[in-house]
Amino acid sequence: MDSAMTSAPQHFLNTQDWTRARLDAVLADAARMKHEPIGDALKGRSIALVFFNPSLRTRTSFELGAFQLGGHAVVLQPGKDAWPIEFDLGTVMDSDAEEHIAEVARVLSQYVDMIGVRAFPKFVDWSVDREDRVLKGFAKYATVPVINMETITHPCQELAHVLALQEHFGSSDLRGKKYVLTWTYHPRPLNTAVANSALTIATRMGMDVTLLCPTPEYQLDERYMDWAEANVIESGGSLAVSHDIDSAYAGADVVYAKSWGALPYFGNWAPEKPIRDRYKHFMVDEAKMALTRDGVFSHCLPLRRNVKASDAVMDSPRCIAVQEAGNRLHVQKAVMRALVAR
Amino acid sequence: MDSAMTSAPQHFLNTQDWTRARLDAVLADAARMKHEPIGDALKGRSIALVFFNPSLRTRTSFELGAFQLGGHAVVLQPGKDAWPIEFDLGTVMDSDAEEHIAEVARVLSQYVDMIGVRAFPKFVDWSVDREDRVLKGFAKYATVPVINMETITHPCQELAHVLALQEHFGSSDLRGKKYVLTWTYHPRPLNTAVANSALTIATRMGMDVTLLCPTPEYQLDERYMDWAEANVIESGGSLAVSHDIDSAYAGADVVYAKSWGALPYFGNWAPEKPIRDRYKHFMVDEAKMALTRDGVFSHCLPLRRNVKASDAVMDSPRCIAVQEAGNRLHVQKAVMRALVAR
Amino acid sequence: MDSAMTSAPQHFLNTQDWTRARLDAVLADAARMKHEPIGDALKGRSIALVFFNPSLRTRTSFELGAFQLGGHAVVLQPGKDAWPIEFDLGTVMDSDAEEHIAEVARVLSQYVDMIGVRAFPKFVDWSVDREDRVLKGFAKYATVPVINMETITHPCQELAHVLALQEHFGSSDLRGKKYVLTWTYHPRPLNTAVANSALTIATRMGMDVTLLCPTPEYQLDERYMDWAEANVIESGGSLAVSHDIDSAYAGADVVYAKSWGALPYFGNWAPEKPIRDRYKHFMVDEAKMALTRDGVFSHCLPLRRNVKASDAVMDSPRCIAVQEAGNRLHVQKAVMRALVAR
Repeated sequence: MDSAMTSAPQHFLNTQDWTRARLDAVLADAARMKHEPIGDALKGRSIALVFFNPSLRTRTSFELGAFQLGGHAVVLQPGKDAWPIEFDLGTVMDSDAEEHIAEVARVLSQYVDMIGVRAFPKFVDWSVDREDRVLKGFAKYATVPVINMETITHPCQELAHVLALQEHFGSSDLRGKKYVLTWTYHPRPLNTAVANSALTIATRMGMDVTLLCPTPEYQLDERYMDWAEANVIESGGSLAVSHDIDSAYAGADVVYAKSWGALPYFGNWAPEKPIRDRYKHFMVDEAKMALTRDGVFSHCLPLRRNVKASDAVMDSPRCIAVQEAGNRLHVQKAVMRALVAR
Repeated sequence: MDSAMTSAPQHFLNTQDWTRARLDAVLADAARMKHEPIGDALKGRSIALVFFNPSLRTRTSFELGAFQLGGHAVVLQPGKDAWPIEFDLGTVMDSDAEEHIAEVARVLSQYVDMIGVRAFPKFVDWSVDREDRVLKGFAKYATVPVINMETITHPCQELAHVLALQEHFGSSDLRGKKYVLTWTYHPRPLNTAVANSALTIATRMGMDVTLLCPTPEYQLDERYMDWAEANVIESGGSLAVSHDIDSAYAGADVVYAKSWGALPYFGNWAPEKPIRDRYKHFMVDEAKMALTRDGVFSHCLPLRRNVKASDAVMDSPRCIAVQEAGNRLHVQKAVMRALVAR
Repeated sequence: MDSAMTSAPQHFLNTQDWTRARLDAVLADAARMKHEPIGDALKGRSIALVFFNPSLRTRTSFELGAFQLGGHAVVLQPGKDAWPIEFDLGTVMDSDAEEHIAEVARVLSQYVDMIGVRAFPKFVDWSVDREDRVLKGFAKYATVPVINMETITHPCQELAHVLALQEHFGSSDLRGKKYVLTWTYHPRPLNTAVANSALTIATRMGMDVTLLCPTPEYQLDERYMDWAEANVIESGGSLAVSHDIDSAYAGADVVYAKSWGALPYFGNWAPEKPIRDRYKHFMVDEAKMALTRDGVFSHCLPLRRNVKASDAVMDSPRCIAVQEAGNRLHVQKAVMRALVAR
């Protein structure tokens, strides 16, 4: 359906690629559609949702978002109910992959108006995973807009998170809020995507951001640290890294939790396990939340209760994780509208 | 989409929870929609279909039912294309489950207007399975109506079954009909859900019901025997248990077949195998059907031919299993309409 | 939804079953809808897409095709998210299959207006696979039209291929074109379906067709050779088999590539492996394409780059494989319209 397309399509790969004005417009549109969910902005339009990994919220919210605007989402799972895909250039494809991203992206572009992609890291070599080549492969070859549904960042989650904070504080201006992004324990080393994203968007919104993690090894990739620093310069606010729970929580307005694996151990996770096991006490609990300034808690979900956050925190009225998840629907509808608007 | 919801949502977990008047209204609405399938009662609305087990009829009929009424169904398969879920309270979630039913149900309630749940027993411990905790977990935490798509009962099948019988006999009043629920052989011990449901609805409709099974060990759980006895008191009709094929079939108007595992061997199935193997002759065949009063045969499907019922019975005009399956579409549309009607 | 159906339904199992006039009408309708994609010819209608094997293009294009015409597609994967199915008659079903095609096809016919079926060969015994019994089982028992979504032929691909050639040559009349169907290497022995189909439709369109393959063992099943010969008599054109690359490519207007396993080794593939390994040079590359008369290249996809065709061929403007894949959407919409038109 790209017949009328004469220039390269716009994509939504990272919030950092979009102007603040455009992000603000999407957030405002999302807030509006939350109260008026049914429309026809995508009437007769379609999106392919390409999942290389499981999903509950992303799949449901994109599928319903398309439906509520008159469109249709097709869900594809390459290697499961579709064919495995090659992403390297020039390969003699005599191994597992049955087709190349060049054909997949071009063919899907014949059928649909947008393509969403979820592709988590392989967790073997961070220098490879950090190139985000699955997403970039789609963006390179597709002739329709591509949306990041979580790869090594999760920009849709960022927007849902910010919308939930704006609702909570009753203002679209989040400057001056003290924001803590805290690492938490999980039995396995997880993707840094949501942590990268939280750091990116919290600084973009001009908040005073503290990245709380057990040791310097748990710092995030320099690309996202650099983005955050650039954002501080542009938007005001501040950025600090801390390994001290009490001072980080002290006076916080927002606590956002996420577990992730330490990048220096990427692909060689055995020695990281005893380190992470020493920091189970990073779990968000009532005692820690009591240190905040009546702070609000959130998480991207899925969340392991009593591992990442206690039952008491999750069931507290200060937990807005469910609202944030609900906002996925609204912000993604706004992103889709922004990408296909004529 | 639960913003206007001020009290606990209504659910459709079991027919026994609903008044007879309400069930009759749903059946009448289903019969009407069978002749006028397209409508807009669910325009812009949605349902999440959460499948922990396979499905052909249930999935297809719910998905199309939503579509034919202007709505949309999202199909989710936790542990397969969504995350595995924890149902216990207070658990330290450091094992397989990535999120808790509290979040799953609350988040889905943000997106959809109804949630359908299919969750078969685990077949390890009946005292656990009989608590139906997956379904009850959704019902507890969801803020939108929950529909049982088969757990340890199968109320949607009950309605489709009754509608097919009403069509066959040309009357909504089934009182006075002799109804036989017969156990049949299957190589594996199966769920008692449809048997529990058949016993429940047949007595609810005031029929003279015989539960035919090989031995007393194949009787159903006391909860459903109790429901059936209460129904006989309320609706008239009768309830008997028999282990004699000839007398059970004699003069029957309806033969409904189902295989299930004997509850005393639940989770320790090896010693049950030689018992069930002795009763392969419970298969429904022409000789048995000849004992009935020109009786009609049905089954919930899927059905193994020449194991549960012979080819001759299945291909006979007295077999209404396909019509019953077709009615799933109509009764489920009526249930969805009843649950979201304003 | 077959209540108004009084005679046997029409199916689309093979192009060879349809008159040339009807195929031409479908192609014309597809070309028209390519420029006017949104309509209501399937308003309130539905199709079940039954996949026994993976799919990307077929699933996406059927699902979107139904949507763009106001209908809805339900995707089913028997043995994966639905129950395994028995296709033999009279079987005592005490093995894996939980239900019989008779019930599956009849029940689906209660729900939907059409059924699409993808069922690849089992690759064990060609004398069994060539009976196409999964597709024929659906066609026998369904009371609604059945569409072949690739079994041992791939008629939807045929139509998309022809439409792409008609677009390329700017004429619906393809007579006089020199058409080469070339075998190519693939690490595994593949289905002959698309090769059978290409041979069938290319001769039907009256082209001068050469089947290029390594040895006589790679000729196609006599059924399709016979169809092709009958088509030559009816439509003009010609049919030749060649094992010589240079003369086959010389002066060609169309090169269509496909890999397949040699039928004499069906089910006993080990001795075929060293044979096929000797013919890796059948890969379509620029040197071979230079022998053609400015020929156009296509393939049904998925395609392994630098195994079946080189990067240079795939990325050349003479490659129309992506357009052909895009045409799947349009021709399938036209087929669905043709089957449910009243």
